[in-house]
Amino acid sequence: MEYDGTNYAGWQRQENAMSVQEALENEIFAVTGEKATVSGAGRTDSGVHALGQVAHFDTNARMGGEKFAFALNAGLPKDIRVKASREVSGDFHARFSAKSKRYRYTMRVSAHASALYSRFELHRHEWPDVERMWRAAEALLGTHDFASFMAAGSRVKDTVRTLSRCEWTQSGENLFFDVEGNGFLYHMVRIMVGTMLEIGQGKGDMRRILEGRDRALAGPTAPAHGLMLMDVLYDGIY
Amino acid sequence: MEYDGTNYAGWQRQENAMSVQEALENEIFAVTGEKATVSGAGRTDSGVHALGQVAHFDTNARMGGEKFAFALNAGLPKDIRVKASREVSGDFHARFSAKSKRYRYTMRVSAHASALYSRFELHRHEWPDVERMWRAAEALLGTHDFASFMAAGSRVKDTVRTLSRCEWTQSGENLFFDVEGNGFLYHMVRIMVGTMLEIGQGKGDMRRILEGRDRALAGPTAPAHGLMLMDVLYDGIY
Repeated sequence: MEYDGTNYAGWQRQENAMSVQEALENEIFAVTGEKATVSGAGRTDSGVHALGQVAHFDTNARMGGEKFAFALNAGLPKDIRVKASREVSGDFHARFSAKSKRYRYTMRVSAHASALYSRFELHRHEWPDVERMWRAAEALLGTHDFASFMAAGSRVKDTVRTLSRCEWTQSGENLFFDVEGNGFLYHMVRIMVGTMLEIGQGKGDMRRILEGRDRALAGPTAPAHGLMLMDVLYDGIY
Repeated sequence: MEYDGTNYAGWQRQENAMSVQEALENEIFAVTGEKATVSGAGRTDSGVHALGQVAHFDTNARMGGEKFAFALNAGLPKDIRVKASREVSGDFHARFSAKSKRYRYTMRVSAHASALYSRFELHRHEWPDVERMWRAAEALLGTHDFASFMAAGSRVKDTVRTLSRCEWTQSGENLFFDVEGNGFLYHMVRIMVGTMLEIGQGKGDMRRILEGRDRALAGPTAPAHGLMLMDVLYDGIY
C-alpha cells in the first residue's frame, strides 16, 4: 500500500480521528460486507507516509485475491492506494512475518521550502555538518540496545534491534536518511533523525548517547512528515 | 516561483476564484501597502503547476530586491513559494523578455494511481505505443504553424512557433514529455499531449494533423494536472 499520511491520524485505528487502518476497514466492509481487522506491518505515526506498507486481513469473500486492490481502490480516498493484493497462506502475518522494514527520512536544505513537496520533507535553511551525521549514522549500524531512541512511556522491554542499513545520502538540495532494520521501537527513526540533526549542528556524541540507554540523552523527535515507510521485506513464501 | 496549481484557478486573476497572481498581489499589498499588478511569464491554466515560473512587478518599496522572496513567503500559502527575487532593470518584462519556456507533462502508467503524486501526473492503466509518440513528437520539433494545437476561440493570429526540444522519455512507470519553445498558444502543450496519446493508441498521423492547421484534426486537450512549467529562459542581463 501507498499512502500520503498528511490527512490521517497514523496507521492505527483511533477514537476520534480517521486512520489509514479505519479507511481500509471501511472499504473492505463496503466491498465484502465483513467487519475485518486489518494488520499492518508498520504502525506508522500520524503524518508519516508509506510507499510500501504491507497489511493482511481475513475474509470469506469469494473474490480472487488479486482483485481486492482494484475493488478497494474504487472506493478508497485518493491518498490511499492498494498497489497490489493477493491471497496468502494462513500462517502469514504482515507484522510478525516481516524480516525487515525500510524507512526513508527526507530533508530539503534551501532558502525556501518547496511548494510541491513540503508535505514529504523536513525543510531546513542551513546545511548541517553532513559528515558528522554520516559518522553518527554509522555508529548506529548493527545490533545495539536502542533504548535511548524509544519514546518515553513505551512499554517495550527488549530494546535490542539490528540495523542492516543506516546512512545519509545527499542529492542536490535533498538529504535522505535510509534505514533498514529487523524492528523499530516507538518513534525510533524520528528520534534517531532528531539526534543526528543535533549532532550535525555540533551537539552530542552518538556513541555516548547509544551506550547511555536513556531517552533523555538523545535529541528531539524529528517531525513526522519527513518519514516514509519504503518497504517491508519477508523471508518465506506465503 | 514554484506552485502546486491544484487549488488555484490558474495563474491569471479571475472574478470568482483564487488565482496564483491574486495570491501574490495580495501578499505584495500586505508587505508594501501597494496595489501592484504582477506579470507572469507563463499564464498557466487552472490546475497546472510550476517549478520555475518567473514574474515581475513595479514597486516603490525600499526593501532590497532579494528580500522580497522571504517577505512574501512569510505570508503566502504553502503551495506557492517565491524561490528567489531580485531587482531588475526597467526594460525587463517577465513575459515579453522571455526567450523560451520549458514545460514537462508527466504520466504514470500503472495498475493503480499513485497515492502520493497523483496531483502531478496523468494516470493511465495501459502503455501507449511509446515509439509512435516519440516519432509524433519529433514531427513537431522546429518551426511550424501550430494552429491545429490552439484552443478553439483563441484570438491569436500568428500561430507560428518554434520548438527547440520536443520529446518523450521513459523512466520506470513514468513517461515525461519535455518541450521547449519560444512561445506557446493557448492549451498548446495539452493539445499536443492529448493528440500524441491518441497516436500512441494507433489513431492519427501527426504530419497530417500539423499540416491541416485545424483544431478539429488534433486530439483532446490532456488534463491540466500533468503539466508543469519547468523554467523560463532569458537572453539578456536585466
